[in-house]
Amino acid sequence: MTSEPAQMPVRLGVVGLGRGFMLMIPTFTADPRVKLVAAAAPRAESRAAFEAEFGGRTYDDIVPLCADPEVEAVYIATPHQMHADHVCTALAAGKHVLVDKPIAISMADADRMVAAAEASSKHLIVGPSHSFDPPVEAAARLIESGEVGSLRMIQAFNYTDFLYRPRRPEELRTEEGGGILFSQAIHQIDVVRRLAGGLATRVTAMTGAWDPARPTEGAFSALIAFANGSFASLTYSGYAHFDSDVWMDNVGELGQRKDPAAYGKARRALQGLDAEAEAALKQTRTYGSGAGLIEAENNEHFGPVIALCDRADLRLTPAGLDVFGDIERRFVEVPFGPAPRGPVIDALVGAVREDRAPAQTGAWGRASLEICHAILESAASGQPVDLQRQCGIT
Amino acid sequence: MTSEPAQMPVRLGVVGLGRGFMLMIPTFTADPRVKLVAAAAPRAESRAAFEAEFGGRTYDDIVPLCADPEVEAVYIATPHQMHADHVCTALAAGKHVLVDKPIAISMADADRMVAAAEASSKHLIVGPSHSFDPPVEAAARLIESGEVGSLRMIQAFNYTDFLYRPRRPEELRTEEGGGILFSQAIHQIDVVRRLAGGLATRVTAMTGAWDPARPTEGAFSALIAFANGSFASLTYSGYAHFDSDVWMDNVGELGQRKDPAAYGKARRALQGLDAEAEAALKQTRTYGSGAGLIEAENNEHFGPVIALCDRADLRLTPAGLDVFGDIERRFVEVPFGPAPRGPVIDALVGAVREDRAPAQTGAWGRASLEICHAILESAASGQPVDLQRQCGIT
Repeated sequence: MTSEPAQMPVRLGVVGLGRGFMLMIPTFTADPRVKLVAAAAPRAESRAAFEAEFGGRTYDDIVPLCADPEVEAVYIATPHQMHADHVCTALAAGKHVLVDKPIAISMADADRMVAAAEASSKHLIVGPSHSFDPPVEAAARLIESGEVGSLRMIQAFNYTDFLYRPRRPEELRTEEGGGILFSQAIHQIDVVRRLAGGLATRVTAMTGAWDPARPTEGAFSALIAFANGSFASLTYSGYAHFDSDVWMDNVGELGQRKDPAAYGKARRALQGLDAEAEAALKQTRTYGSGAGLIEAENNEHFGPVIALCDRADLRLTPAGLDVFGDIERRFVEVPFGPAPRGPVIDALVGAVREDRAPAQTGAWGRASLEICHAILESAASGQPVDLQRQCGIT
Repeated sequence: MTSEPAQMPVRLGVVGLGRGFMLMIPTFTADPRVKLVAAAAPRAESRAAFEAEFGGRTYDDIVPLCADPEVEAVYIATPHQMHADHVCTALAAGKHVLVDKPIAISMADADRMVAAAEASSKHLIVGPSHSFDPPVEAAARLIESGEVGSLRMIQAFNYTDFLYRPRRPEELRTEEGGGILFSQAIHQIDVVRRLAGGLATRVTAMTGAWDPARPTEGAFSALIAFANGSFASLTYSGYAHFDSDVWMDNVGELGQRKDPAAYGKARRALQGLDAEAEAALKQTRTYGSGAGLIEAENNEHFGPVIALCDRADLRLTPAGLDVFGDIERRFVEVPFGPAPRGPVIDALVGAVREDRAPAQTGAWGRASLEICHAILESAASGQPVDLQRQCGIT
């Protein structure tokens, strides 16, 4: 599939130099298996910063970036609603693609992307997502090994300040992919599907959009049934009150140490801002605006997860797995580093250099997206929703 | 309704001197508002112990106890399946009744008990239950006050060793009230209903009966919708692996301090025992068998509970309420003591001396029981179950 030697770094072009890209910088910088050679972005400021920092070529559009013969694979980190067009463009140009979660907002877009990947000889990977987190992978492998018996029940929950981080207006409109479903629930769904083998069958859920000033879903609870007979209970709140990271060793989602004295910080920062000022505040957090990188010291996570198996419950923590067995309790350490998100690069290198698909393919990402829509649909109808587009571990 | 002066202790007759009674002894002993004057139990050993400890009269049957004119109120602490007959007998004899949760196993029995209470001039109280726990009451009052805005979402979960405590054989048969639904879920349902105002409308749930050696439900997850628009997510496991008391200040359900070194104790104690030996082991934990009382130092609880309101999330702990507000976090201390379960005595005294019904009436207990059945029914059918017998706060 490729003529490059296996040890050559994957030459990556980045499309979109926003927050998503910034969060990947420590990973790209730390990992010799990948090299940033090009970027496309509309803002001259971020293109200049990229050239200065990485020495690559930049473009103001995806099309010339995809025509760049040095680019082997493209990382799409643009706003959700642009994913479908950008992914199809890159695949059509013969590039492997890594696209941020969610794969898309509409199922029609996801279908188009999966079809484009199938029609090409290239890989489509949906990530980063917290299903790549090393403790999640370790738990999935322990479950698959059979050592702790059958998986029966998963509980996953997360209480964050997501809804009060600075937003562009469309990020607060559900139909454009705003709110917690497409940005946050998608992680939890991905994690739970990774542990349960991927094939969900039915979803029942309730959602809440309780702040009239930010009129999109900010919380939900869902029950998900899986084809293997297991089930999962998911709860998420982005309303910035209780912070469940106290039950994750005071480590934040991005592996950073959290400061308990910062309570209420997200809401305080927004006080008195109108939509324009808030969008400007968001802009200061993007690449090339002088914002600092997150200093991760631990594995990333997406809130407490407990996986009940016949012979042990597994509790995922940033440091590894707490394995509560029949008679004994043990801790399986899952080392961090040197940077977060190494497994995303594993997946990219595996796909580009060894033609090996990760769990998180386009079809996988579409299956997680289907559950986001099922949550909205079930909450609206009060009825369970049967799933049609699920995907197991390949 | 009564000719006794308000300050006279309520003269209580106890029916059933088993584990339930033992767990109430510290409360009865510490509270001058109640006096144990009689007991009925089949075992001579426990009757003798009662006479020696409390100086009251004992009977081998409920009928003569209810004919005892000194008895004003009867506490029914017999096995679940006997509650209906015993409660109806006591009400017919003109006694106020406190009956352990669950009110009954079958809805028909619960209907009969509620009708008997309505036909009498006496009060029927279902308790103790963890909805009486002082932090639950404090949270319910804070919510009712409107200070933290509307209640929107509740999450309650609990991971215990319930299924591996020593059992009589019928306690492992669902149709006789065995398993976690009628003994454990009922608490969680009671707590959640207390916070949400009581009127549930619809339940969707999944259950698990995963140990063939103990073939009854050991775990469940449920979503419950309420008439006020709020919803709750409940998860329970009695499979004795992860213990969620680590997230409750290492305080156990009964307010006792837990010893982390005792991991696996419940399963270890059962290893190699047949059903008969296990029932004998259970017997050693009952009243008059020399078993010690639980030493509570904190409020009782039933696992982590988070109540999301518009302007704060409330996290219930054994010490009180952690109130996570918009900008500030504060802790509302809820003092313990002198013994657990004082609010159960408040309810009893209020009913007997002041003709005041607590939240936890017979109709209330029947509404919680309805949800236990709805959980089983929804798990079997895969469909939501609409509720018909719910009851608000009186």
